[in-house]
This record gives sequence, structure tokens and C-alpha cells, in this order.
Amino acid sequence: MNSGIAKSTVVKDIVVQNIGVLGAGQLGRMLALAGYPLGNRFTFLDTTGNPSAGIGEVIVDPNNQHLTEFLAKVDVVTYEFEHLPVQLVREIEQHKPVYPSSRAIEVCQNRVEEKTLFDRLGIPTPAYRVVESAEQLEAAARELGCPVVAKSVTEGYDGKGQAVLKHPEQAGEAWNAIGHSQLVVEAFVDFVREVSMIAVRGRDGEVVFYPMAENQHVDGILRYSVAPLPDLDASVQQTADGYIRALLDELDYVGVLALELFQTRDGSLLANEMAPRVHNSGHWTMDGAVTSQFENHLRAIQGLPLGDTQAIAPTCMINVIGREGDNAAILALANTHLHRYDKAERTGRKLAHINILAPNHAELLEKVNTCSALLPEAPPPALSFSIKQ
Amino acid sequence: MNSGIAKSTVVKDIVVQNIGVLGAGQLGRMLALAGYPLGNRFTFLDTTGNPSAGIGEVIVDPNNQHLTEFLAKVDVVTYEFEHLPVQLVREIEQHKPVYPSSRAIEVCQNRVEEKTLFDRLGIPTPAYRVVESAEQLEAAARELGCPVVAKSVTEGYDGKGQAVLKHPEQAGEAWNAIGHSQLVVEAFVDFVREVSMIAVRGRDGEVVFYPMAENQHVDGILRYSVAPLPDLDASVQQTADGYIRALLDELDYVGVLALELFQTRDGSLLANEMAPRVHNSGHWTMDGAVTSQFENHLRAIQGLPLGDTQAIAPTCMINVIGREGDNAAILALANTHLHRYDKAERTGRKLAHINILAPNHAELLEKVNTCSALLPEAPPPALSFSIKQ
Repeated sequence: MNSGIAKSTVVKDIVVQNIGVLGAGQLGRMLALAGYPLGNRFTFLDTTGNPSAGIGEVIVDPNNQHLTEFLAKVDVVTYEFEHLPVQLVREIEQHKPVYPSSRAIEVCQNRVEEKTLFDRLGIPTPAYRVVESAEQLEAAARELGCPVVAKSVTEGYDGKGQAVLKHPEQAGEAWNAIGHSQLVVEAFVDFVREVSMIAVRGRDGEVVFYPMAENQHVDGILRYSVAPLPDLDASVQQTADGYIRALLDELDYVGVLALELFQTRDGSLLANEMAPRVHNSGHWTMDGAVTSQFENHLRAIQGLPLGDTQAIAPTCMINVIGREGDNAAILALANTHLHRYDKAERTGRKLAHINILAPNHAELLEKVNTCSALLPEAPPPALSFSIKQ
Repeated sequence: MNSGIAKSTVVKDIVVQNIGVLGAGQLGRMLALAGYPLGNRFTFLDTTGNPSAGIGEVIVDPNNQHLTEFLAKVDVVTYEFEHLPVQLVREIEQHKPVYPSSRAIEVCQNRVEEKTLFDRLGIPTPAYRVVESAEQLEAAARELGCPVVAKSVTEGYDGKGQAVLKHPEQAGEAWNAIGHSQLVVEAFVDFVREVSMIAVRGRDGEVVFYPMAENQHVDGILRYSVAPLPDLDASVQQTADGYIRALLDELDYVGVLALELFQTRDGSLLANEMAPRVHNSGHWTMDGAVTSQFENHLRAIQGLPLGDTQAIAPTCMINVIGREGDNAAILALANTHLHRYDKAERTGRKLAHINILAPNHAELLEKVNTCSALLPEAPPPALSFSIKQ
């Protein structure tokens, strides 16, 4: 994939490594906070003109003029955002190791490539069709049975470039609204809950898995993640481990990979999408697991042994979206950890998250309800395991 | 104590607070790592010309020319090093809140003031005398019974300015070697172990205590800390809590206070010295307690509620001194956390620490031995509880 890179081995000595991060938002910030204790330094390349990492050295480069300067400062490159030009990543790979590789980005930023890979590896997905016209969209909607969701093949992020069709006759309208030459059309899944897997693969091929999390989204934005789950069959976790391991090995992947899935009424799993980076549904690991996803990503890309992924206690992550809550009252809750991103309030913006730990899921749910009431924009938690309590 | 400061109250809203830190070493670095998630930013004032924090904004000011610039940037001031000119701290208090206060610094940097305070609050100490000549030193040595240790009253740090007298006749030599006009002479204590207490007092007077740690020093430098202790009577912890609470309340203290003590054969405690800051013997809390000493110090000085101090599991902190070990092998140990300070190797220099957690003290000891063997300069652990295992 990138010929100029030294053979993957577990290094015996860590020298202080300057980590280059493409993107400079909260994920980069949290990578840096996990990496300083490993002796790393951080340089961020921001192409938006609006970085928020607030840590390390940030090179603001909206006109793509400072890549050489960035590359001169760093020993290894990773990213916090996968919607990058693949060509840019390939160019960087000519000069410095990039983990995960441009191949992972290429697959993850294209829904057709992603679905094709899922199919090839025997990872079940909701039924889908690829369409290239309003007519094909209408036919696919009839074939799959409405409602269906149509998604642009590239640049999908947080619900953008998507439309739900309740009737096949809405195809023309949806086609025009999305305005993309190729769409993926997916059947709706009668799922019980949305779940996700976070796994990490080292440069030597070692793979570790975090316990599966349940996720609650509202308006396409993650609001709650809980892990581990009190009602998860070991066989389901093993199945999910197998799916994500197949992806990691196939892509010769290095770093954290997130895989979002639906769990259906019969317990089976259908893959939704994946993200080749540290992921919001893994933020619970910062306080709830022995080693956080951020530290494990950094261990992986530096060729270091991976850390323990087991959970310390039942943990719920709550995203703080749009407006912050009563932080002093939140910090007064037992075993509650605030992670602010030092960003100004704005509707729909991820400003912080809160990790709550409790000795059991019943107490956890009680604390989550208490905390949620202190956040002006938090929807009530509706986590599937709570129904079983 | 400082009239210009707003009344201490628990603030209901956290605004992003720029924390000013006097000193820019590893303690400041770890304060910053704990403070970013609270939304804090950090400005360090380094007077040594050799800062190592490697994070936040560092103002290097060996000639004391940039205090105004520093003060303009910060909302509240704290420090990582107490051997500061009291006059400087009093000057800062005229402009910005300083926690802990100049009064705490004044007491902690003067052994006579410190001992006097211990006496006044009924906190037992080893027998001691204050002497102001070689003749008085010799008389004190005879009275207390050799061996005794003579210490300069001020500027003592990590064994500097100290001498051990095995015979009263060594008084003249010791007096000249220390070269200070006032010394404290202390009787040797037949202690079973060295222990320490870390406690935190909020701006509203709330106090929380960490479990007592056992500390192993070699050549005056801390090497190992273990907490909680498997063989500690609850009454001994309560006694220690009472001692440190008396100090905190008496000084109207805000922030983390560390108190080092000796535990004697009959279980009783004798206070050795205190430090008005986050402390090396509290580094185990970064991974071993629900809330670290660093986060709790920042919560305290910002008027936020204090976090849980209980231990997650038996934890041992190992200091990495002088030369680093095989970091990859160390990271391969289960539930082992590396905290590097990004400092160059130098004999006697604190370069990093490692926190090891285990489900019980027997397993902990085994892992500590394994880890210690991976560090070129680590002495064998000799922790008192191991004898009882």
C-alpha cells in the first residue's frame, strides 16, 4: 500500500514521536490528551479554517499550502475525520506512514465500496440497491418495500445527503433533494437497538475488542452510548468480534475501527456503516474501560502493544449537544466525568460528553436520568436494556 | 488573607478558566492534562529557564520580567512548587486569587513554622529541636540521642540541606556542611513504614480524603507508592484524616495538601512534613482512584464540587528515575499505565511514572516485581504489606 514505510514490528523503544493528525476537532484533542502520557507530541493539520483542538500545534491550512511544513514536523500521520481527499492521503503516504491507510479511507467514504466489502466478507447488512437515476430509485423503493432510506454514495455524514421515501412516488423529489449521481437505497430494519463495536488492530496484526455498546441517536446525532450491555449473549458479542476482525484483517488495518450495527428482534446483527477512526460511541472507554480507545489508537499506530479493553463498570456516555448544562451539578454526581471540548455553543454542535459509571445498570440508569435533567438539550434516555430492568 | 478576592462560593456555571501555574514541570503538565476536559486553559510561569511541561502556554521568565503578562492571561493562580518567594505570591494575591494561599506556602517552606503548627494542632511528630549554632546542634544530638537528622529550616527539597549525625561530635562538621543559620534536628523514628495522606479542600470548606498510601523512598527520592493498603486499620486512616483536616481548616486551605507521616510499630502516626500541592505520592490516583488528585485540585481552586476519592483497585505507582525502561514491554503488562514527562534522561531525574492495578495485593506485588525488572534504575520494591502476604 505504501512502499516507503518500514516493516510493521512492535518497537522495543519508544522515542518521543510527533503524531500528525489530519483534522483538529475534539477527536484530535482527545487523542492528544491520551498521547502526552505516552510521550507523544501533536501537530494538527486543519483544512477547515476553524480548528477547535485547543492543544498541541495547529497548522491552519484551508488552501492546502502547508502540507510540507506539516510533514516535516511529524513521524506518523493519523486522522480524526475520514472525509478527506483520498489523493491527499496517498500523497502523504509517499512521505510518512499513515494509519489507518488510504485504502481504509477509500472504502469508508464510499457506501458502495463499504457494502461490497461487507458482502464479500459475509457480514450481513440491511437489503440495499445501488441506483443512478430517479427511475432506478423508484424501482428500488418498490422492490425493497417502503419506507426506504436513500443515501448519497459519498460525503455522507451525520444524516446529510439522505432522504426517507415513504412511497416510491417520492423518488423524483428525493433524487433532486440529494443531488448526487449515485445513491444507495436501504430497506428499513425493524431493529431493537443500534449497537456498535470498537476494535483496534496493531501494526503486528494483534486485535483487541471493546465490549459492544448500545447507542441512542436523535436526529442522526448520537446522544447516549452504554457499555457493557447487561442483556447481551456472549455469542452475539463473538459474532460482532468476528465481523470487525474480518474487516480489520482484510484492510490490513492499523488503529481503531468503529462498526455500527442494528440488532434485530431475533438477536442477529446487520452492519450499518463503519468509521476508520476513534468514534463517539467509544468515548465511554475514557473512564469506563481499562485503556481508552484514544490511547489504544495511539499504541496501535506506534507499533506498541495494545492495552486492556475490558470495562471497569457499567458506563453511559451522554453527549452534550448545542448548549451546555449545569456543569457544577453534573460534577457533583458520583463517579461522573465531564469532558469538555472548549467550543462555543451552537445548535447541533457537539460541545462535551459526560461519562457516568455505576455498580449496576439499574443505578446507572437512575444517574443517567438525573444527569440528563441537568442538560437543556438532552432527550430522555430510551435505552433498550432499561425496558428489561 | 487576601482582601481582593471574591467570597468563596461553589460556582454554578463553569466559564472557561485560564489557570495560571507557577512552575512548569511534570506536575503542571499533569494538572493541564486533567484540566483540559474541564474546559480549562493553562499558562505556566517558569522562573528556572528550563521548563518541561510541554503543554499549554509557557512564559519563561528567569529574570522576573513577565509577571504582568502572566497575570493578564489568567483567572486563578496555583503552583506546582512551593519553594517560591512568599513576597511574590503575596504580590500575585493582590491581583488574582491564589490557591493554596501564600500563608500555606509560608508554613510549608519553613520547617519551624510547620512543626509549630503540627504541635499547636496536636499532630504528633518525631521529637525535634531548633538550633542556631554548632554547639546547640551538638547539645540537641545528645539530648535526642543519636542518630539524628539535621535539616535546614528553609529550602529543603528531596534530601538537600540535610545531614545525619551518628555521634554528637559530628555536629561541627554537619553545621558547616549544611551552612544555614537555623536547623531543625529530629530524632530518628523506628518506623515500620512511610505513609502519606492526600486530601483536598474546596472553596466552600468541603474536604475529601484519599486512602492512605505507603511510600518507599531511596536516597530521599520516592520510588514506590501503594494504595489502598491491605493491612490498615480503619482507625488509623481516621486518625490521619483528622490530622490533615485540622491542617486544611486551620490554613483555610483550598486545593490538594499532601502530608507525609511515619507509621510506628504500634500503628501510631508521626507527621514528617507536608506539601501544599499535588504530590508524587498521589500519582497513583490518576488510574487507581475515581477522580485523580490533579482533577480534584482543579475542581477545588475553581469552586467546583470535589470528585470521588475512592480507589478502583489496589494500585502501585513506580517512579521512573534517571533512565527509562523497556516501555513497550511495560505497556504489555495488564492494567499498566505509563505517564511520561517528555524529559531527557539524567541521573536522579523524575522522567515518568507507571501505575499498575491488580485485583488484589498479591497479584499487584507480582506485577510490580515484573515491571521493576524492566526499569534499569529501579530498586527492588520493599513494601511493608508484602511481608504480610
